[in-house]
Amino acid sequence: MTFIDIHPGPSQDPAPGSFRHRFHIPPGLRYFDGNSLGLMPNVVAHAVSNAVSREWADGLIRSWNSAGWRTLSQRAGEKIARLVGAEPGQVIACDSTSVNLYKVLVSAVRLRAGRTRIVTDVDSFPTDLYIIDEVARQFGLSVQQVRAADIPSSLDADVAAIVLTHVDYRTAQAHDMAQYNKAAHAAGALMIWDLSHTAGAVPCALDASGADFAVGCGYKYLNGGPGAPGYLYVAHRHQAACDQPLAGWFGHARPFEFLPDYAPASGVDRFQCGTSPVLALTALHAALDAFDGTSMEALHAQSCALTDAFIDGVDTRLARHGFTLASPRSRQQRGSHVSLRHPEGYGVMQALAQRQLIGDFRMPDFMRFGFAPLYNTFEDVEALIDAIEQVMRDASWSSEEHRVRHAFT
Amino acid sequence: MTFIDIHPGPSQDPAPGSFRHRFHIPPGLRYFDGNSLGLMPNVVAHAVSNAVSREWADGLIRSWNSAGWRTLSQRAGEKIARLVGAEPGQVIACDSTSVNLYKVLVSAVRLRAGRTRIVTDVDSFPTDLYIIDEVARQFGLSVQQVRAADIPSSLDADVAAIVLTHVDYRTAQAHDMAQYNKAAHAAGALMIWDLSHTAGAVPCALDASGADFAVGCGYKYLNGGPGAPGYLYVAHRHQAACDQPLAGWFGHARPFEFLPDYAPASGVDRFQCGTSPVLALTALHAALDAFDGTSMEALHAQSCALTDAFIDGVDTRLARHGFTLASPRSRQQRGSHVSLRHPEGYGVMQALAQRQLIGDFRMPDFMRFGFAPLYNTFEDVEALIDAIEQVMRDASWSSEEHRVRHAFT
Repeated sequence: MTFIDIHPGPSQDPAPGSFRHRFHIPPGLRYFDGNSLGLMPNVVAHAVSNAVSREWADGLIRSWNSAGWRTLSQRAGEKIARLVGAEPGQVIACDSTSVNLYKVLVSAVRLRAGRTRIVTDVDSFPTDLYIIDEVARQFGLSVQQVRAADIPSSLDADVAAIVLTHVDYRTAQAHDMAQYNKAAHAAGALMIWDLSHTAGAVPCALDASGADFAVGCGYKYLNGGPGAPGYLYVAHRHQAACDQPLAGWFGHARPFEFLPDYAPASGVDRFQCGTSPVLALTALHAALDAFDGTSMEALHAQSCALTDAFIDGVDTRLARHGFTLASPRSRQQRGSHVSLRHPEGYGVMQALAQRQLIGDFRMPDFMRFGFAPLYNTFEDVEALIDAIEQVMRDASWSSEEHRVRHAFT
Repeated sequence: MTFIDIHPGPSQDPAPGSFRHRFHIPPGLRYFDGNSLGLMPNVVAHAVSNAVSREWADGLIRSWNSAGWRTLSQRAGEKIARLVGAEPGQVIACDSTSVNLYKVLVSAVRLRAGRTRIVTDVDSFPTDLYIIDEVARQFGLSVQQVRAADIPSSLDADVAAIVLTHVDYRTAQAHDMAQYNKAAHAAGALMIWDLSHTAGAVPCALDASGADFAVGCGYKYLNGGPGAPGYLYVAHRHQAACDQPLAGWFGHARPFEFLPDYAPASGVDRFQCGTSPVLALTALHAALDAFDGTSMEALHAQSCALTDAFIDGVDTRLARHGFTLASPRSRQQRGSHVSLRHPEGYGVMQALAQRQLIGDFRMPDFMRFGFAPLYNTFEDVEALIDAIEQVMRDASWSSEEHRVRHAFT
């Protein structure tokens, strides 16, 4: 199997390029929610068990050195760096995405002291909007929420920072990183990316495109497990000047000297706060091995082929049932999930779940289907189209019955 | 075995009151570092394995409901509440201790807007000092660092909040919670406790003593695993007015409606930020079952008996080797570890570790020995005294040799 365009060719033996065997696939399940919580890579079960029953239970406090716990955040960060186009020394895995956004946004605002506005996409994931509002309040700034496409034309010399999600969580609309970075820098502002729906499925080039900061989630396409630590990226050129607000001891230059005054670690390490969450980081660190031997370009080709196949099915078999495509048709503008809208979307997702096909629903009527290039297959796509069609045939009966009942009451 | 004063009586069969069997004890090891990283409760290995290989791997996204992931932070919090004298609905397990201190300290400062000073113990654990300095800087406040005993007399109408660690991380000095709360409230200030070296070993009465806020660590006497989530306490009377700075989606009143505006959850739930770290919380939540059937009073009696026994040994057998006691002699003023000072303390700890007795060292010359009442025994105490004596006998040879060598160079 290659990554590109095997659909609709004949099925083949497992072949180089398929990484599905690296994951635990629950029997009978078709999973389209890797953009919400990724499948478990098989290596994780052993790694976590080893961390609990050997490193912790037997090694105890000694494992901070002997099992490498002290550098887990950095080592997980470097594995992520490779997936998001970052050279070493700029990505670290720690805390949650929300906490990490707080850290980098405050840092950015401090680097651009005197400027009075933060600009963001009105359709950002809500937690990003909440954190932005809070930082603005603390620093006496205003927040301008506009459509992503209107951000470049909204910028001026008052803007301190722009926060934009690279791939929209509802529509999968992807944004041109280089274009926004350029526009931000032309206005003298700093660009912060949320890569939660990007990393592990869609390529991006943080370094090459000139990004300033980024944050992201460990439990979606990175498969780090429920509530896995997030990560953050800080471009080398900003690190020495960064002054992040959660100045905890793990971000100190010499944490184990227990000094009374804070002195930030050099580099991206200063963005740590409390003690590293070893068990959670162990899961994430191991999960990232599922990307060994892959390239983001090949994975993206697979992602595009899967989402194209699904969109074909929507056009040819589902549009007649009232489904409309909420995601871009262009591969260049699309992440790795496809959203449909339908007035009965919530009920349809429930009916699919009963048939062991798992996607998710986002208010008011978005049906989201994630296609994770490491493990989703064209058979999955075919089964999904079939099942939605089937549900709609059943649903037409129910709706009919529903209408009849209503007529009698 | 009862909790009180079996030492120096005859050894007995395992008897009600001993909980050592609930833990994995590495063969041959004597562990005196439960105040830094607790032993692994046996139930944790299964609980974590189940969370990884069943709840995540098979249940996937559905486990947020079916496996109760959504309420893990609350359920772990309630188990901790029982150990720190808090009625339900006031403790939640989330983030790290440092991040939690940031959240409650900013909340306190906002509740006391207009006041200009934060007071703390000059000997606080460094991460607390760093976070306090950062919050003060952000809100334009000053920080007054004094000795803990001088805090009550330092308070006036300018003080917004006091941060004090209940049991000092170096000396194990314990403070009278009610006395400090009373002094804080007399000045109109809010009292924040760090319970990192308290919870699980030393009783405290957050509610009854009138505490306002508290934070603490999950990986010491609570045995939640390396880098386990911390927790925080907010007294019922403050919750509705609290405005915490890390306004992430898990602290929202209706997180799954994905609303653009932040509306804090009612109660202590609003102190959550990002997605709950499920695997780490699962370990902590399970570990807390090691306290089933215990009372903090009984555990404290055991803690006092163990530390008394160790101090006896120091007096009768170690003082002659130059060890001085850095912890209070009074049970009422002492936590569950005992610190000794010795000019060669670092080397002594290394020599003990080589003999499979694990304590830890804190600059400049503190040798810390934790006695966790759930699992440490009087045999441990005896073995520790024996080993230190043995090391000093060996060391006296080395020192002699060292002096002789020096005399020739």
